[in-house]
Amino acid sequence: MGLNVAQKLIKEHLISGTMEPGEEIGLKIDQTLTQDATGTMVMLELEAMGLDYAKTEASAQYVDHNLIQEDSKNPDDHLFLESAAKRFGLYYSRPGNGVSHPVHMQRLAKPGKTLLGSDSHTCANGCMGMLAMGAGGIDVAMAIAGEPIYITMPEIFGVKLSGELPDWVSAKDIILELLRRYDVKGGVGKIIEYYGPGVKNLSAMDRHVIANMGAELGATTSVFPSDEEVRGFLKKQQREEDWRELKADNDATYDLEDEINLSELIPLIAKPSSPGNVVPVEEVAGTPIYQSYIGSSANPGFRDFAVAAEIVKNRTIAQGISFDINPTSRQMLTNLVKEMHIASLLGSGARMHQAGCNGCIGMGQAPASGKNSLRTTPRNFPGRSGTKEDSVFLCSPEVAAASALTGEITDPRTLEFPYPEVKELKNQNRNDDLLEHPLPPEETKQVELIKGPNIVSIPEMDELPDTLELPILLKVGDNISTDEILAGGARVLPYRSNLPEISKFTFENVDSTYVERGIKSKELGGHMIVGGNNYGQGSSREHAALAPRYLGLRAVLVKDYARIHWQNLVNFGVLPLQFTNEEDYDKLTEGEVLTFKDVRRKIQEDSTLSATLQKSNKEITVQHKLTNRQKEIILSGGLINWIKERK
Amino acid sequence: MGLNVAQKLIKEHLISGTMEPGEEIGLKIDQTLTQDATGTMVMLELEAMGLDYAKTEASAQYVDHNLIQEDSKNPDDHLFLESAAKRFGLYYSRPGNGVSHPVHMQRLAKPGKTLLGSDSHTCANGCMGMLAMGAGGIDVAMAIAGEPIYITMPEIFGVKLSGELPDWVSAKDIILELLRRYDVKGGVGKIIEYYGPGVKNLSAMDRHVIANMGAELGATTSVFPSDEEVRGFLKKQQREEDWRELKADNDATYDLEDEINLSELIPLIAKPSSPGNVVPVEEVAGTPIYQSYIGSSANPGFRDFAVAAEIVKNRTIAQGISFDINPTSRQMLTNLVKEMHIASLLGSGARMHQAGCNGCIGMGQAPASGKNSLRTTPRNFPGRSGTKEDSVFLCSPEVAAASALTGEITDPRTLEFPYPEVKELKNQNRNDDLLEHPLPPEETKQVELIKGPNIVSIPEMDELPDTLELPILLKVGDNISTDEILAGGARVLPYRSNLPEISKFTFENVDSTYVERGIKSKELGGHMIVGGNNYGQGSSREHAALAPRYLGLRAVLVKDYARIHWQNLVNFGVLPLQFTNEEDYDKLTEGEVLTFKDVRRKIQEDSTLSATLQKSNKEITVQHKLTNRQKEIILSGGLINWIKERK
Repeated sequence: MGLNVAQKLIKEHLISGTMEPGEEIGLKIDQTLTQDATGTMVMLELEAMGLDYAKTEASAQYVDHNLIQEDSKNPDDHLFLESAAKRFGLYYSRPGNGVSHPVHMQRLAKPGKTLLGSDSHTCANGCMGMLAMGAGGIDVAMAIAGEPIYITMPEIFGVKLSGELPDWVSAKDIILELLRRYDVKGGVGKIIEYYGPGVKNLSAMDRHVIANMGAELGATTSVFPSDEEVRGFLKKQQREEDWRELKADNDATYDLEDEINLSELIPLIAKPSSPGNVVPVEEVAGTPIYQSYIGSSANPGFRDFAVAAEIVKNRTIAQGISFDINPTSRQMLTNLVKEMHIASLLGSGARMHQAGCNGCIGMGQAPASGKNSLRTTPRNFPGRSGTKEDSVFLCSPEVAAASALTGEITDPRTLEFPYPEVKELKNQNRNDDLLEHPLPPEETKQVELIKGPNIVSIPEMDELPDTLELPILLKVGDNISTDEILAGGARVLPYRSNLPEISKFTFENVDSTYVERGIKSKELGGHMIVGGNNYGQGSSREHAALAPRYLGLRAVLVKDYARIHWQNLVNFGVLPLQFTNEEDYDKLTEGEVLTFKDVRRKIQEDSTLSATLQKSNKEITVQHKLTNRQKEIILSGGLINWIKERK
Repeated sequence: MGLNVAQKLIKEHLISGTMEPGEEIGLKIDQTLTQDATGTMVMLELEAMGLDYAKTEASAQYVDHNLIQEDSKNPDDHLFLESAAKRFGLYYSRPGNGVSHPVHMQRLAKPGKTLLGSDSHTCANGCMGMLAMGAGGIDVAMAIAGEPIYITMPEIFGVKLSGELPDWVSAKDIILELLRRYDVKGGVGKIIEYYGPGVKNLSAMDRHVIANMGAELGATTSVFPSDEEVRGFLKKQQREEDWRELKADNDATYDLEDEINLSELIPLIAKPSSPGNVVPVEEVAGTPIYQSYIGSSANPGFRDFAVAAEIVKNRTIAQGISFDINPTSRQMLTNLVKEMHIASLLGSGARMHQAGCNGCIGMGQAPASGKNSLRTTPRNFPGRSGTKEDSVFLCSPEVAAASALTGEITDPRTLEFPYPEVKELKNQNRNDDLLEHPLPPEETKQVELIKGPNIVSIPEMDELPDTLELPILLKVGDNISTDEILAGGARVLPYRSNLPEISKFTFENVDSTYVERGIKSKELGGHMIVGGNNYGQGSSREHAALAPRYLGLRAVLVKDYARIHWQNLVNFGVLPLQFTNEEDYDKLTEGEVLTFKDVRRKIQEDSTLSATLQKSNKEITVQHKLTNRQKEIILSGGLINWIKERK
């Protein structure tokens, strides 16, 4: 039976498991990307692992998130990341080079390769015929150290594209159409593969737009074939040699199928406050706006800015409108400057910002209170813009530019001039001096990590002792979220490279005495936490496992776990236990001490453990659901130790 | 006797007083400028005054300081300022148009006119043959309402320029040379007037550089003649009709004199952490840097960016260097784009930021901890960059660009290529659509002020009652600073358009109960504060008078005052009293109540008042130093009421 593109990519990288949807598979990772917001912790993990040199074909550290630099924390992170890239043999993309996804696509992406990135939009590089996936920081650290990634084999969802986009309609409308049909959970457990005669009518950057926002469908990733268009893209980047063809076999099939006729699409828009809240633009036309925002990895292409520039050229935007232009890479910005598109945008009244993620991740450019913001970005979750109770609409650059001119949401088909033609670039500017290349291995050893005062190495963590005598420091109910375990937000996030500092926020709204009691417990062999159902729901942040571990947490005993937090506990060496009898939950109180004997042997041999309760001298039985690989990790005291032992 | 340029400007605008150094003079104000950080309060003052339409020839509201927009507060301010500009008949320069001083110079400055601005670098427009001065917000509000400004007649310090600047030396080095000679207090009480054969060798924008940093010498302002160069500048701005000649008479004299031979200058640099800490660049050459920063009103010209671009063109900046380019106006940025200078800068590795004040006022681009930052900005006071214990050097664009290439402080004369020639622009881009013009008076009345939730009108304040019965809520010692009265900083500043909120920080580090007790006192007729010597020293912020007044402060009784805070107390209707016998200070305790009878009549008739002490039933005599105009203001309850009564 023939294979589709996704299956070919998986098959070529399969290390363990079988390609049956639902099965766990291990995949070899060829490339990684990290950005600065997640990358500092990844680099600290590499340091803690004692990694010598990246084992991937190419790993790149980008700086695109924290560019504002209101104080020394951001620039200290940049210098640390640059030194870490030198130390571990990574590419380093300096601040000002642009957003990781388009820069990676331009300079490093290769058809047929796997890419793992500590950013949820890593899937964007699926546009290049890659299997590109977002993951947690430590997963990427492991990949850099040469370990496979373990995922659940997804279903392959084939989306056949036919026809050609009409005037005023562009790639963004294709992914908005899919979000209109399937909403934000429609892609969960699936890889979306685009195929059919419509694909050739989309440029590589158009495909980037579509693959990028596959994240908003919840998809594992999205893939496009690697065809002549991809070859042409690479040729302009002066690396045609990186091209290979990758197409579905003629008799390939898909687990699920749908079709989009591009010719029938109209301009679409996602209303506040979900990317799945999609309607035709004409339905909300006339809504007054405060802001029109162009940029982000969801519309990163030269064309996306150039078409906006052509629309506003020799015109002036409406009074009171903030028309914010956020170039996505230095290369693109330079081309836009040389082709006079930046001059057109400036002349119309645009505000030019530095190349980076910027307002897309809430770093500046927040809209005014109670006003509407129109953005070409991928997400409009409530408050993401920085403004409380914001009202953000997502759309194409055509809609954003048209609306900047009128001051209200505008279907660009109603403008009184023809759809402008964007001349394609003959010669791409590129300057690799600015994407710093990895040092050769022999030069990396003497590189010292540059750590500002807010960057603190991850302390060594011990392996699992054979006897655990653990007081219950905290007993909580159902549905405890990772926000309750360790909050996000501007108050806490600046400390994400500083475990001792960030751990001080652990459980602060649940029990403000936890931190102090945790630190005390550490010297006496640690402590445990007892909880109910769905423990650790919400954000995937790994600090919610790492911080309590730092404070002495050795085991969690709950009714059941949210999946990702369970995984994070394993990764950082916290024993994730579950009640065998849920009524035992009621028997346990804060202050009770549980003793587990001969733990190391028992974990390896059995899925249950028994514990003695010190106060009542009773015994309870608890269980774990660890795989053999995970048992090893727990015994080692977490992934960092595990990889150190395997070196 | 002949007059110099400063004397001519003063004479033409003199409303009261005589032109003897040290005498108080009143000057008619033709133009004003406000920026967003100070402007919101000015607009609220105009609202409180009930101003109908600006009485100046041209008043402009710029948005250049708070451009980051991490949440809705900044953009709410922008919308408020735009609506206020429409309401009161002002120009409005939208975010992205650039820094007030160069934009004002380009679009509105006129030789022979006076300009008052709520920004300390307003003096920059002295380059245009204007008398341009920085002042407090309410002074500018009064000027917009048609009132004169009262200042002490300064001495005129003539600086004769001869010769021509050598290669690699530019205007910045001229003002750094003056700072080297006279340090940061050398200009206090003086107007610096430049004259002589060297003036014609400086472009209007070069003169801007010099006049701007007159602020760093502490000068009242700086003036240049209006000559053919200024005419040419205005011609390129398509407003040659605004030019008039203004030169010193042949027999003009100066109170003080000095001379600079431009031909003898070498590249200079101000070391951390004072603009007066100037040495030759060669003395610190080789010092490693983290950042090279170009921009700000201290080097705002097309030439300043173009020369940097020519220096780095087809070269790459050193690894690890953040080369930050901050264009100073939209017009300049557009020209720099069109002339391919931006492409050169980008190609070398520069980060392009939006047009505005940005890092110069600590809004982003903070340097890394413990690293050196090289900037073309006017100030390097400790911490101003946003980084604690920062290390900021001030220099010319030539030095900044040369050092970006090498990664260390570099005397550009040591570079191995010739000084690049910067081609002058033939045709300036300009687009006045983006500097919104004042509405005609008949259209302003229906304009409503747009107030986000953080913008609160100034409440009405009552006139001075005839009997004051004031408890002493606070007794403090000597040298109380305005920082102790009301702190600055990121925690407090966002509330500067919200008097009820900002007043909650009053005296927080002196007595945390003051605010609550103040609010209670208000209903009972207010309260007073007793202090020692030098009360109100430090920053000139008027909120340090306005906030306690809002909390019920009616009188301050101290040994003596810092001058500006004394003025601010008068402006906001707080009676500024002084002990006649300083030993009375020791008799007063917190909780004591002082009763002043028949105050209104007594203030007008005499410079002393008597007060009865409730506890001891004793009497003390106190004095005030109010002029007749100030008596009127105090009786009205402050300037806002005073101007309302005069309408």
